[in-house]
Amino acid sequence: MIIAIDAMGGDFAPTSNVEGAIQAAREMPDVRIVLVGDEARLAPMLSQAPKNIEIRHASEMIAADEEPVKAVRRKRDSSMVVGVTMVKNKEADVIISAGNTGAFMTAALLITGRIKGIDRPALSPIVPTVDSAGVMILDAGANMDAHPKHLLQYAIMGNIYAEKVMGVERPRIGLLNVGTEEKKGNDLTKETYGLLKESSLNFIGNVEARDIMEHVCDVVVCDGFSGNILLKTMEGTAKTMMSVMRGEFTRTITSQLAAMMLRPGLRRMKAQMDYSEYGGALLMGVQGICIKAHGSSNPRAIHIAVRQAKKFIEQDINGLIAREIQEESGDGNV
Amino acid sequence: MIIAIDAMGGDFAPTSNVEGAIQAAREMPDVRIVLVGDEARLAPMLSQAPKNIEIRHASEMIAADEEPVKAVRRKRDSSMVVGVTMVKNKEADVIISAGNTGAFMTAALLITGRIKGIDRPALSPIVPTVDSAGVMILDAGANMDAHPKHLLQYAIMGNIYAEKVMGVERPRIGLLNVGTEEKKGNDLTKETYGLLKESSLNFIGNVEARDIMEHVCDVVVCDGFSGNILLKTMEGTAKTMMSVMRGEFTRTITSQLAAMMLRPGLRRMKAQMDYSEYGGALLMGVQGICIKAHGSSNPRAIHIAVRQAKKFIEQDINGLIAREIQEESGDGNV
Repeated sequence: MIIAIDAMGGDFAPTSNVEGAIQAAREMPDVRIVLVGDEARLAPMLSQAPKNIEIRHASEMIAADEEPVKAVRRKRDSSMVVGVTMVKNKEADVIISAGNTGAFMTAALLITGRIKGIDRPALSPIVPTVDSAGVMILDAGANMDAHPKHLLQYAIMGNIYAEKVMGVERPRIGLLNVGTEEKKGNDLTKETYGLLKESSLNFIGNVEARDIMEHVCDVVVCDGFSGNILLKTMEGTAKTMMSVMRGEFTRTITSQLAAMMLRPGLRRMKAQMDYSEYGGALLMGVQGICIKAHGSSNPRAIHIAVRQAKKFIEQDINGLIAREIQEESGDGNV
Repeated sequence: MIIAIDAMGGDFAPTSNVEGAIQAAREMPDVRIVLVGDEARLAPMLSQAPKNIEIRHASEMIAADEEPVKAVRRKRDSSMVVGVTMVKNKEADVIISAGNTGAFMTAALLITGRIKGIDRPALSPIVPTVDSAGVMILDAGANMDAHPKHLLQYAIMGNIYAEKVMGVERPRIGLLNVGTEEKKGNDLTKETYGLLKESSLNFIGNVEARDIMEHVCDVVVCDGFSGNILLKTMEGTAKTMMSVMRGEFTRTITSQLAAMMLRPGLRRMKAQMDYSEYGGALLMGVQGICIKAHGSSNPRAIHIAVRQAKKFIEQDINGLIAREIQEESGDGNV
């Protein structure tokens, strides 16, 4: 099993990526990890690394603010493009990148192609829930102007993921909406509601954004614009609250002492609200297994993404999706 | 100055509404407050009330889950419809309701009508920011399938509000989007970007959901679907974090003690993240001044909404909007 990591992508690259890769390589000696990037920079960082980690040189890198399609087309020897191409050529089973999300999606789509039967891939992160089970959101930003049939395909893919990877029996599929009543929402959700209702999925109806972290369903489907707003609002709110809390905890000697006493609990809380603990976002619907780690991934986030990658390969997640989509469209059940 | 309150709308009605009204009536003796609702239920609650508070009987009420248009059309003697009609007939200067949001918007639109030049009203709440200044979001759910010109009108209205009510000079207008770059987003945001750029407003470009609470702009414009997702995600995330925190704070004797020591800070934090501290959501663009208080409003939330209502009347917020919209369309500046 070969796991490629875009060593140059992400806010803390290559340091975090290399450190995370080393941690993962130590934990999973049966996995081969390939760090894709500038050999001159990476080699010195690997002096203490275990043997199951190696470098694949790539001379360029795609920056966070580059225009995706242009960047992917022009920078053929970037760490990201080389990594995705390795998956396409079966030199790696999966590629993990914490780099430019748009470029990564573009590269995955252009280089590895779509799974047959899927019109649009979906960026599918798992977001935190109070019970730590996590909820999958698709699409969180791959496809901006989605049609109802895309959302139905997201639901089918999310269902497979929740069942096979998360181990949920008859996953509850929810449609992100502004209210729970059937007739709520915009043209897209109203039409999608009908498609999901007629499908063989365990569709539980509309779900409101404020209830998602309460784990009211296992999979949330939505257009990429709304999903992105949802995801980034969660992130921003959690970050703001943490920073307000930090301010209060350092305000007086008493509060500093109290914060010290609470440290284990605060650490648990932080971990529970931390996306990276739930792994990266799978780009569902493309042929190669492509995992998008958060831009600000620390070594632990990369380490967890490698664990997740291993699981995806073992369970043949893309094979499952391809078969399910064909069955569903074949027997007209959905 | 007469402020009408829908006494029967909201999760804790009529108790919260009456208590909040009494608090506000005591604080603002120059204001007359009219509680609209079932006299038999309300009268006994007003035995200790000051003289500037009275009851206007309404025999019906609209429930939270009723279909808005049907409810407004049929329940002519509901507290909500009677309250909005009072504003229409100039028997009240403003109506505050914590009831069914859809029904309230419908009633406001059908009964008082739109401000000339505004195609679609917008639900416009103020959301919390780290610096406690607050940011106005329009639209947070009035208009589900918005067009670019609607978003431009929201920006004009939000600009007036921020300038005149919040006292911000040259308010920074942001367009809710999935990235800050000009070409990001869906068809709606791409087209709206151009309109805002050409306007005379202080348009600062796209803003991401995760940065809003950091107060990167004073007014955020978006379609009602996305705005609703944004608002409810903030609400849900804050609630979930508070509940996780509560769990940690009560876990051990040590953590309980620490939580006690932190109580003043936690109270400040809760207040800072509490929507109701920022007042209700103005329904901008309708002729009458209509303020939507949160469904779960406590007495304090109602009290604050009354303060806010007083300010709106004093500043003639709707007159300002009407004049500005006419000027903007008159001189073709926008």
